[in-house]
Formats: sequence, structure tokens, C-alpha cells
Amino acid sequence: MKTVFNAAHAAHAPTHEIFRGRLVPAFETPARAEFLVAALQGTTHAAASTHDGFVVPRDFGVAPLARVHAGAYLQFIQGAWDEWAAEAASAGNTDPGAAFPAVWPAPGMRRDVVPANFAARMGLYSMDSGTPLTAGSWAAAYGGAQATLTGLALLREGERSAYVLTRPPGHHAGVDFFGGYCFVNNVAVAAQAALDAGAAKVAILDVDYHHGNGTQAIFYDRADVFFASIHGDPRTEYPFYLGHADERGAGAGLGCNLNLPLAAGSPVSDWFAALDTALAALRAYGPEVLIVSLGVDTYAGDPISHFGLLRQHFHELGQRLAAVGRPTLLVQEGGYATANVGLNVRAVLDGFDGLALAPD
Amino acid sequence: MKTVFNAAHAAHAPTHEIFRGRLVPAFETPARAEFLVAALQGTTHAAASTHDGFVVPRDFGVAPLARVHAGAYLQFIQGAWDEWAAEAASAGNTDPGAAFPAVWPAPGMRRDVVPANFAARMGLYSMDSGTPLTAGSWAAAYGGAQATLTGLALLREGERSAYVLTRPPGHHAGVDFFGGYCFVNNVAVAAQAALDAGAAKVAILDVDYHHGNGTQAIFYDRADVFFASIHGDPRTEYPFYLGHADERGAGAGLGCNLNLPLAAGSPVSDWFAALDTALAALRAYGPEVLIVSLGVDTYAGDPISHFGLLRQHFHELGQRLAAVGRPTLLVQEGGYATANVGLNVRAVLDGFDGLALAPD
Repeated sequence: MKTVFNAAHAAHAPTHEIFRGRLVPAFETPARAEFLVAALQGTTHAAASTHDGFVVPRDFGVAPLARVHAGAYLQFIQGAWDEWAAEAASAGNTDPGAAFPAVWPAPGMRRDVVPANFAARMGLYSMDSGTPLTAGSWAAAYGGAQATLTGLALLREGERSAYVLTRPPGHHAGVDFFGGYCFVNNVAVAAQAALDAGAAKVAILDVDYHHGNGTQAIFYDRADVFFASIHGDPRTEYPFYLGHADERGAGAGLGCNLNLPLAAGSPVSDWFAALDTALAALRAYGPEVLIVSLGVDTYAGDPISHFGLLRQHFHELGQRLAAVGRPTLLVQEGGYATANVGLNVRAVLDGFDGLALAPD
Repeated sequence: MKTVFNAAHAAHAPTHEIFRGRLVPAFETPARAEFLVAALQGTTHAAASTHDGFVVPRDFGVAPLARVHAGAYLQFIQGAWDEWAAEAASAGNTDPGAAFPAVWPAPGMRRDVVPANFAARMGLYSMDSGTPLTAGSWAAAYGGAQATLTGLALLREGERSAYVLTRPPGHHAGVDFFGGYCFVNNVAVAAQAALDAGAAKVAILDVDYHHGNGTQAIFYDRADVFFASIHGDPRTEYPFYLGHADERGAGAGLGCNLNLPLAAGSPVSDWFAALDTALAALRAYGPEVLIVSLGVDTYAGDPISHFGLLRQHFHELGQRLAAVGRPTLLVQEGGYATANVGLNVRAVLDGFDGLALAPD
């Protein structure tokens, strides 16, 4: 299948993140995309005429992002680095490093009065302090949304599927907050764009190890987007505060949200049983387009996740996704066993395309 | 006046806090209390028969704390250090340092399912990552509440006033969250205890530079506690998300909340004009007991605040508080110009007691 490559990913190059109050080396790094590029170059998934075989994203502007994100939030993210750098410079620091939130609204606090203070707005618009905001965060996230919209355009133009090679990921980003390494919710932007282009029903399947809380929340009360997710149980796994099995949608969207949390350390057979359940529900829903939040942090070797999928399981996942028989957009989310991210994704794409599993 | 001293304060000895994603030296340190002790020893405010002239706190147990804080929150704070240390030890780290939150529930996320994950509970029960949770946080905070309740008992036993020398402070702590260096809301515990002991109306005046968001929130819909606060405008000053002038209380409590935010850098004359307004409202309310959240970070030399009070202004504050003519409990909150905290508090107490301003 064709791969759309967000080359702007490299602008977002965090060196560190905060993990439990300590600066630790960043997990979500440009190297992730570099290994993806290396694994797909020279394959049938890199067959376009430009950019080393990858499709170059078109520019659809910010309007499609504003269909699912609050305007004030997008404005903040777009200008946040400049604010942070200017504030640091005025304090004599010309190399401030990434910005992190440090204060946030507890229950009963107000969100209707947007503070002038930069740190306060960082907390208003975020859900964790583990997501470094860098000089290139906006450029990379904006580019990722454009690459995802380009992938969707390929489907409209007749491709059966497309893969979006991008980072940072998107599925944790909500209407008005960033977190979990995510700033712009790429799959939500694409689902809304598909609806705006005339589709009546879109389904999103999230197979990242971590629950796609942002995606769920954006569409929770709507019937035109079905969201299914297989993920580590939020009682112990990030993002902790959403992703339980009893979250089935609200209002018109009741029944259009399916969470399949699995205990950390669950066997692969349980994961595929959950996949069967999710795919049966998707089929019953009958979407015109299938969008996959393709995290490969379900890999046995992932440093921050606890499922046990191996290369052949990713290949099987690709086969199962293809069997749904819908135009399918696969969008890169997590996966932090950096050197294996590319090989695992290639296995999914090969499986989808009916190709044999390639040797490593 | 008599001073009740929470000697357990020293158990909470953070070395660092997180400020905008960087570890910086802690502002809220045991030295603050040491300077308070030094400034009050040998004065009329240290005239008890024990403990260098200070009153030793009695122990009223945890029940009075549970009258204003959620039980699950108190349980968490009480055991948090042991959980943190055990988790670190199981990862081979026997000297983990203070615990800080790093993830929190964004809007739309759930608070009804309490995660098993320790980091997730840290975020559920907090409002910032600038409040280090140390091995002695609970002991110090518990001791502070007991010292405050002891001060209240002194009023019931006939004292006109009492001062509670304690740290960490309390007024940012809400029903179920810590933050702003605070874990247990001492003045809220005391106000509720006064009501429980038979008072019909209690007033809390918060003169700390930072809005007492926890205190306000705890009593916001109640008519039996009047809360007035003079503080830096939350648009630019911590705690950012509460403390605006239009917050006047709700339901039965409508009209029982008075916020007087002043722009950072406001002249002292504006501060005293706001004090006049607050005291007039307190008098009109007619409380049986007056409790003062006595932060002295309004001092001109405070490193993290932006008002300009000098020693004589603290003396004048004491005079004005005494003129209200109610049994008055003064409870230590903020003040980070460490070497001046004691002298500024002594000036308040001297002013209250009709003594001349002592030379430094």
C-alpha cells in the first residue's frame, strides 16, 4: 500500500521527558520514524514517484483540525514554544529546553477564564507532564494531520488502503488538551474529514497498547463514528482515567464506543480474541471507511508496555484488518521498541496486502 | 498571644520542587519554621510553660480532618510515601527522593474509578507537580492540623487569640487534592471544628499572597462559613484557576465568598483598601470566631510573590485584625523570604496584642 510520510516529524525532537518527577531520556523520538522509513524503503509500501518512494503530504490547512479541536487550544499549541522561549529569554535563559506543564485545574476550578500566565495555560491544555513541548511540536503535529488527510484523500481517489508514517502520535489528544506524546488527534481529524466529505459512518479501531482517550472523548456522544479499542487496563496502565469496559458511548452515541481492556501481561490469545470481538462489532456497524490507530507498542519488546505480540502477530493483524473489506487508513501511533517499530509495522502492511511475512 | 508549635513540621523536609519542568531548590522548607521559632522565642508570644515557651499540640485524631477532606484522599496521603518507596525499592532504588504527580484527569476523564497505579492516584489527588510528597509529609500535615485544633481549643478556653506556628501550609488543599505545598487544609479543619463545637458562624480571612482555593471550594455552597481573600490576581498568579472577583458563593452560600484579587505589583495602599473591604464584610457577617490564613508572602522581599508590604504594614495588619474584636485564630500559611518570615509574623502578633513594632 502507499505510505504517506510526514517529513516534518523531525522538527519535534525531544531529548527528555518527565517520568514521575524525574527527567528521563525521551521515549518518543525521531529515531522511531527513521526506523519506520528504513523498514519500508524498497518495499511495495514505498512505491510512489517522489520522496524515496513515499507520498508527500498535501496541505489542507488548519480548518480540518479545528473541526475536532478547540480553536483556542490550536492557537495555544501553535504559539506555545515562542511564548515559552520569550519568557525564558526575558529571564536570561536562551536555551530553555522543552516546556512541561506543572499545574492544572483540580475539580471545582475554572476553565472558563483562560489565565494570562503561560504555565497556567500549559496545564489548562494538557493531561500530563510527560509530553515535552518543543520548538517543532506544532510543525510536526500539523504535518502529521496533513499526512493523515492525504492518506484519506488517497482512499477517496481509489486506493484500498494507505499508511501514514508520522510522529508524534495523536490518539491521546482531546478536544482541548495534549498529553501522552500527542498534540493533534490525527485519526479524529481524518474521521471528521471523511464525514465532511460525505461518508455517513466511519469506524476507528485503536490497537495501540494505550487507550485512545482523546479519540473516544471527541466522538463519545455521536453515532456517526464507531470507536473500538483494545488496550492495557487503565486501572494500571496509562492513560488511567478512561478506557473502561463500561464506557459505551452517551446520548446518540450510546453503543458506538467499545472498550476491550486487557490486564497488563495478558497472553496474545486474549488479544486476538478481543480483536475478533472488535472486528465483529465494526462489521455490524458497517462503516464506509475504517481508520486504524496503529500503535505497535503491543510488541513483546516494548519498554513501556506489557503485551506480548511478536512479528507474526502483527502480520496476522494486517490480514484480519484487510478481511474487513473496507477502505482502510492506517495511522501510526505508539511503539517504543525503536529498532522494531519499523519491522512490526511492515509486518502489518504486508499482512494487509496479502504478502508473506518478510524475514527480519 | 499564645503560640502553638507543630514540631512535627520538621518531618517534611523537601529539598527540591518542580518548577516548569525543572527540579529547583524547594521554597517551602523547615528553615521557614526555624526562623519563626527564632523570632518568637523570648517574646510574649512564647509564654507557655513547655517547649521553649510554645504550646504543645494535643491530639484530636484524624476525625476532624475527615470532616472537610475525603476519606479516600486522607488514606492516600497517609500511605503515599510508603507506596512510593516500596515501588522504587522494587525497581532497585532505595533513595527515590520526593514523589511528584505527572499525569492528571483532563476534562471528560473519570474520577469515579480509582486507579491501582500509584502515579495515577498521585495525579487524581493533586493540582500541581510543585508540591513534593516526602517521607514526613503526612506526619507534618497531620501535626499542623492538630496544632490548629489546639489553637482553637485555647480560644474556647478563654484566650482572645492564638497563633499556630506550622508548616507545610494548608489553604490550597481541597476536599480531595493536595497542591501549592499544602496537604491538609488547617483553617478549614478548624472552621468545621468550631461549627461542630457549637458556633453558628465562622469567618476565614485569607491574607496570603495566593488565593486560598482549597478553603473557598470546601465551603463554597455553605452559609455557615464566610470566606474572604486578598490575593494576587489569578490571571497571572498561582493558583490561576480560582480566585476571581465574580466567585461569590453558590446556593445557600451565595454572598458568603468574597475575593479581592489585586494585580501583581499593586501598591500597599490598594492592599489596605482591600483589607478594609474584607473586614467590613466580615463584621457585617458577624462570626463567632475569626480564623486568619496568615501568609506573609505579601512581603516586599518575597521571592515568588509581588506585593510590597513592609514590617510596619504587618504590624498594622495585626492592629486591624484585633479591632474586629472576635476570638481570633491566626494560622501560618505561606511566606518564602525565609529570614523575614519570623519577623513579619512577630509584627502581626505584636500589632494584634497592642504592642509596639519591635526593631529588627
